[in-house]
This record gives sequence, structure tokens and C-alpha cells, in this order.
Amino acid sequence: MLQSGALGQMMRALRCLPGIGPKSAQRMTFHLLQRDREGARELASALLYALEHIGHCGQCRTLTEGSLCPVCANPRRDRSLLCVVETAAEAHAIDQATGFQGVFFVLNGRLSPLDGIGPAELRLDLLDQRLKSGEVLEIILATNTTVEGEATAHYVCEMARQHGVNTTRLAYGMPLGGELEWVDGATLSHAFNGRKSI
Amino acid sequence: MLQSGALGQMMRALRCLPGIGPKSAQRMTFHLLQRDREGARELASALLYALEHIGHCGQCRTLTEGSLCPVCANPRRDRSLLCVVETAAEAHAIDQATGFQGVFFVLNGRLSPLDGIGPAELRLDLLDQRLKSGEVLEIILATNTTVEGEATAHYVCEMARQHGVNTTRLAYGMPLGGELEWVDGATLSHAFNGRKSI
Repeated sequence: MLQSGALGQMMRALRCLPGIGPKSAQRMTFHLLQRDREGARELASALLYALEHIGHCGQCRTLTEGSLCPVCANPRRDRSLLCVVETAAEAHAIDQATGFQGVFFVLNGRLSPLDGIGPAELRLDLLDQRLKSGEVLEIILATNTTVEGEATAHYVCEMARQHGVNTTRLAYGMPLGGELEWVDGATLSHAFNGRKSI
Repeated sequence: MLQSGALGQMMRALRCLPGIGPKSAQRMTFHLLQRDREGARELASALLYALEHIGHCGQCRTLTEGSLCPVCANPRRDRSLLCVVETAAEAHAIDQATGFQGVFFVLNGRLSPLDGIGPAELRLDLLDQRLKSGEVLEIILATNTTVEGEATAHYVCEMARQHGVNTTRLAYGMPLGGELEWVDGATLSHAFNGRKSI
């Protein structure tokens, strides 16, 4: 009865949000229209503002408002340490959790030739320029451990080697607080084979 | 690092959605900006369109685009059966699940004197006019079983009695597929005391 017209359109539009199915979209629609029209108005204008003003940082390709992101614009960041990640969200997570004081390079994807994503799409030319400039001493590869993520890591590692830059990869093993019994086999195998003496 | 400016504003704005905390808002922000800018644009325009065009139905007070909702505008609906609910979402749920062919009256709230919500705020004057017109033969009370919902049901029941209109209340008991062991005490007590001979 109510799925047609502007209500239905709003419900369908909300489903562009990740993790939101028809039931949640319906609940959100009724909530916003009945209890929080002001919030809905602010959301619409924040979306439009963000779409217009947020682009990619000229140096690290993360999402940012100006031409340079706060990390790249910060003169106290160590430009000799470069952490390569797949997404802006991952750069954000590392920045929040680790106290990393270097800078990032955000690929905004991973190598995936079948999907037409090659080095050009990831702007690896920008990364190459930075490696060429000689200011980078270590590249920290923080791509994911999927097939594409590993391929990307391998490719970047080769680039780094050509420029004589050290490369490190995140440590893989048991998550903190994880129980042996519940950890997947691949992680357990990594943790077992990468054991350290204490 | 990224919480300031337009990105932070978008994350905060997304939190007006019910059930969305800071982590989900962050995930949604990155997803929309990185992978679905078109969807974000459509969402913003759907929100603005809905805010401007969706109001309350002149007869049943549900959320609708025109002056009359599709249910009230439908000449084949039985106007002698009137189901009173608290929210438009509940009217929608009943309409979808039950095959109910009557019409609704949406209170858009419940009596709650402490919050300043009295009969005028629920537009019970509109309901009174409809009862006065004599077309309603049965009122189905489908308010929730909270203290305020019960008080509202009692109030509407009294109004109906003054106009000599029959009133019924939804049946309360065990949910279908529910197991005795896990049902709360109040529901179990209702189900037990309201047992029917078979």
C-alpha cells in the first residue's frame, strides 16, 4: 500500500547504504518522516555537500575535502615511511589504532585484471613518482590477504625493489583475544609457521 | 584524522538513522563516497523530495504523498471497519500481513500526558467526527501493549462506546512458532488465561 510514490522511492534510495535491506529501509523511512525530519534534512545536505567537496588527496589518494589530506599536509609526519592500503577506511583504521607517524598511499582498490583494474586505475604511477624521488625508505604493505590483495602487494613490492626501497608486510597470526578453537585454518597455519621464540 | 570537515559531517549526519552508530556511519560514508556516489546523490534527492511532498492523509493521518492515502482513496475499502494504530509503519504491517479490507486511523503517537501528548495531539477530534458520522460499525484497537498504548486504547474505547460503536482488541497470546520456555511471563499469562476450547 505505501511502497509506491515518494515513500517507496525513499525506501529504495536508502538501500544504497551498505547493510540496509528492505525492512531497515522501511524503518528508517518512517522514523525520519515521523520523528526526525530535521535530521533527514541535515543528512540530505551533508550528502550533497560531501559529494561536491570530497575528492581524492593529490598525494595519497585518500578521501579528503581539500587538495591535500590532513595527514599529507601535516609537516610532522615522517615521509620516509609509506603505508600502502586498499581503502581510505583502512588508512583511517591504521591511523587511529597504531600510532603510525608515517604517511599513506591509498590504492582505492586492488589489482584485478578481470575487472579491468590495472596499475593505471590504482594510480601506481603516483606511487612510482614518490619512490623515484628517494624520500621513501620503507614501504609497509597493508593490503588485504585476498588473492587480489596479495597480487597487489607483490606488484608494489616489485616496484619498491626496483627503486631499492625496503618493503614490509603486516604480521599475520592469531587475533588478540582469539581462541585457538575458533580461528580459521589459514590463520592458524600462518600463526603456527610464523611462531617466534620468546 | 578524517573525522573533521565534510567527511565527519557526513558521518555524524548518517547517525540520525535508527540503529546506526559511529562505526556503521563511517562504513556507509566510505562506501558511498568510494563506490556509490550515484546512490548517494539519489538518496539526497529522495530525502529532499519526501520531506517536501510527504505529509499526513487528511482522513487517516498516515504518511502519504497526496492529500488522501491510497487506502482511504480506494472506494473498495470497507469504511465500516476502522483499525486504530499508533504509527504509519504499523498500519502498513497490518495491511501487508492480514488481508484487512477496512480502513485505518493512525494516531502518530499515544496518549502520554507527561510528554504533553493529549487527545488533541493525536487528532482524536478527527476520529470523533468519523464516529459521529455513523459509518463506522467496528473499531479494531491495535495500539501496543505498553502502559500508554493501553491507556490510549481505553480512551478510544470510551469514545466508541459514547457513539455506540463496537470495539475489539487484537488477540494476545503465544507468538506462532514461539516456544513456551522462551516466552516472557506476561505473554504466557495472557495466553494461559485467554485459552480457548478446541
